[in-house]
Amino acid sequence: MKGAVMRTIGEPLRIEQVQVDAPAPREVLVRTAAAGVCHSDLHVLQGSLPSPLPTVLGHEPAGVVEAVGSEVRHVAPGDHVIGCLSVFCGTCEYCVGGRPNLCEGTTTIRGPDEPPRLAQDGEPIAQFAHLSAFAERMLVHENALVRIRPDVPLDRVALIGCGVTTGLGAVFNTARVRAGATVAVIGCGGIGLSVVQGCRIAGAGRIVAVDTVAWKLELAAHLGATDGVNAAEANPVPSVVEMTAGGVDYAFEALGTPATVRQAVRMTRKGGTIVMIGVVPMGTNVELPGADIVLREKTILGCMMGSNRFRVDMPRYVDLYRKGLLRLDEMISARLPLERVNDAFEALRRGTAARSVVVFES
Amino acid sequence: MKGAVMRTIGEPLRIEQVQVDAPAPREVLVRTAAAGVCHSDLHVLQGSLPSPLPTVLGHEPAGVVEAVGSEVRHVAPGDHVIGCLSVFCGTCEYCVGGRPNLCEGTTTIRGPDEPPRLAQDGEPIAQFAHLSAFAERMLVHENALVRIRPDVPLDRVALIGCGVTTGLGAVFNTARVRAGATVAVIGCGGIGLSVVQGCRIAGAGRIVAVDTVAWKLELAAHLGATDGVNAAEANPVPSVVEMTAGGVDYAFEALGTPATVRQAVRMTRKGGTIVMIGVVPMGTNVELPGADIVLREKTILGCMMGSNRFRVDMPRYVDLYRKGLLRLDEMISARLPLERVNDAFEALRRGTAARSVVVFES
Repeated sequence: MKGAVMRTIGEPLRIEQVQVDAPAPREVLVRTAAAGVCHSDLHVLQGSLPSPLPTVLGHEPAGVVEAVGSEVRHVAPGDHVIGCLSVFCGTCEYCVGGRPNLCEGTTTIRGPDEPPRLAQDGEPIAQFAHLSAFAERMLVHENALVRIRPDVPLDRVALIGCGVTTGLGAVFNTARVRAGATVAVIGCGGIGLSVVQGCRIAGAGRIVAVDTVAWKLELAAHLGATDGVNAAEANPVPSVVEMTAGGVDYAFEALGTPATVRQAVRMTRKGGTIVMIGVVPMGTNVELPGADIVLREKTILGCMMGSNRFRVDMPRYVDLYRKGLLRLDEMISARLPLERVNDAFEALRRGTAARSVVVFES
Repeated sequence: MKGAVMRTIGEPLRIEQVQVDAPAPREVLVRTAAAGVCHSDLHVLQGSLPSPLPTVLGHEPAGVVEAVGSEVRHVAPGDHVIGCLSVFCGTCEYCVGGRPNLCEGTTTIRGPDEPPRLAQDGEPIAQFAHLSAFAERMLVHENALVRIRPDVPLDRVALIGCGVTTGLGAVFNTARVRAGATVAVIGCGGIGLSVVQGCRIAGAGRIVAVDTVAWKLELAAHLGATDGVNAAEANPVPSVVEMTAGGVDYAFEALGTPATVRQAVRMTRKGGTIVMIGVVPMGTNVELPGADIVLREKTILGCMMGSNRFRVDMPRYVDLYRKGLLRLDEMISARLPLERVNDAFEALRRGTAARSVVVFES
C-alpha cells in the first residue's frame, strides 16, 4: 500500500510503498478513507514531539473495516469506523474508573517485542499514535476504533477522531459547561473552534473567542462565538473581564503557551474554571498568580484529549453532526490527496488553514 | 470592655479599654469565650496582610450570645455560637449558588458610612474580619455566626471557627475525598493537621504528612497520618511518589509557598487533584509544570476557607468532635488569658505551637 513516510525531522514526507501485516487476534485492518492533519503531526515533523523513526504520521482518521482478527468483537468487515489515539485496555484502574483516556494498560495491548505492524522491505516502520493514518490501510487494535453509523461522509467525521473530540470533550466531559454560563476560548484553530461549537451546543450564554488572526475570529463567530477579541491588538484580559462583568465562568486555553494559560486564569471570574487543553511544551513552566487561585477559589482542569471515553462520545458527536448542531464542513479548509500531504503541513505551519483533510480514493 | 488593640505593624498588641456599640437590627452582641490565634492574625501584625489600623485582631472565636438586634432570627441570648469570617449576605449569586464563602454581598451587610462598631474615646477601631475576637465582646452580623449545641467546651470548638473548618472543608467540600484514596498533606500546622483529620474521617487509605519539623509530623501521625516525610532532609516528591506507587490521588498544600505548590503538583498521580489552601503572597507566581497538568490530566482546586458553608458545616464538625472523631484537644498547645496574647504570637512566629487559644474569664 501507499503511505507517507517520515524518515528525518524537518524533511517532507515521502509517498512510498509500505507493507502492512495481517491482523493479530484483536486487531483490525481498516481501509483509510480520510485523515485530518493535526498540530501534533506537525510537532513530530518539526522535532518538538519525539517519536521513533521512520514512521507514518496521521492520527485523525475515519475508514472502513476490511478484515478482523479472531478475537475482535466490536467491528466486522464493512463497518464504518473512526480511529482514536486514546486506545484503551479496558481493565486498568483508569479504564474501570471511567477515564479510559488516561489508560495505563497500552503495554498490554502491544508488547515491545511483537513484530512491527508496518514495514518496508524488512525494515520496521513505527506506528504513530497506534494509528499511522497517512496510509491507505491501518492495522490497529480494536480498542483504537469505534463503529459509527454508515450514513455520514467519512471525510467530514474524520475530524472527530482527534481535534473535535478534544474540543467538545473539554466542554462536555472536562468542564461540564452548564447552559447560560459565560466562556472564553483562547486559540481558534481546530480544537478551539470545536470548543466554541461545544459551548454553543451546551447552551452557553456568552462565548468570547480570542485569537490573533481575523479570519479565525470570523470563523469562530460563524460557528457560535457571540464575541471576539483580537489578541494581536491588545492584552485580551481586560476586554474579556469587562464584557463579562468581572470575568468568565470558564476559560478554555487551546494554544499551550505559558502566556495564554496565565491569561486564561486572569480572565476567569471568582469561583471560575480554567481548562488547559493546549499541550505546554515539556519542561516549560506556566507562571500562575497563586493568591488569585486560592482567594478567588479558581479551578484549573488539565484536559487530555477532551477527557474522552471515545467509544461513548464519538457516536454522539456523529449524531450531533447529522442534526446540524456540530458543523464540520465549515471547519475543513482543504481536501487533498495523500500525494499532497506536505501542502497540508505547510498550511498548518503558516496558519492559513483551520483543518486540512487527506482524502483517499475509494 | 477589654480588647487587644493593634496600632502599629510589628508592635505587641496592647490590652486596652474599648467601647462596643449596641446591636443594629441584624447584629448580635457575643460574649467571647475563647479565640484561637491564627497565622492570618500574625500576617496582619507583621504587615504582610494589609488591614486598617487601629484594629482588634482575632477571627477564630466561640462565645455566648448576650443581646440581639430586632431583626435577628438565627440566635437568641444564651445561645452558644461559633464566629466565622465568611460572613454571607444570603442573596448574591455565590450565596444562592451554594458557595457562600465567596459571597460578594458583604457591602450590603455593612455600608462604609455606618458608625464604627468598636471605638476608643471616639476614635474608630476597625473590626478585623468582621469579628475582632481578641476582646471580651464581639458585635457582629448574625450571618457571621452559627448556633451550636451547648454541651461542648467553647475553648475547644473555637478552633472550628477558622483553621479546622478550612482543613476539614478542603477535604469534604473542595476535594470531596473518597474512602480509600491516597493523600499527601504538605504543612502540618493548624490547617494541615485538620486536613489530616478530615482525610482520616473520610476513610482515606494512605495519609502522608509532609513537614520540616519532627514534632509536627509526630502530632500528624497521632491525628491520623499513616506516613510522614521530613522535607527538611530531602525533596519530599520522590519519597511520596515511591511510597504511593506513582503519586497520591490528592495533594493538599497548606503552606502557601510557590515551592510547595509545585511539589504538590509533582507528587500527584495521573488524574490526581491538587488542593491549594495556603495563601500564596499577593503578586507571587507559582511556577507549575504545564505538560504534566495537561497530559496527566491533573486538577488544581483553589480552596478559600475550606469552600465552607459554615452554617451547615460547623455544627457537623462539632458533632464529629463529640463523637471523638475530630480531635481538638490534641491540637491545642496552650491556653492563655487575653493579657498573654503576645506570647501566642511569639509561639506562632517560632513555630513551637500547633494552636494557641486565648481563653476569657466567664
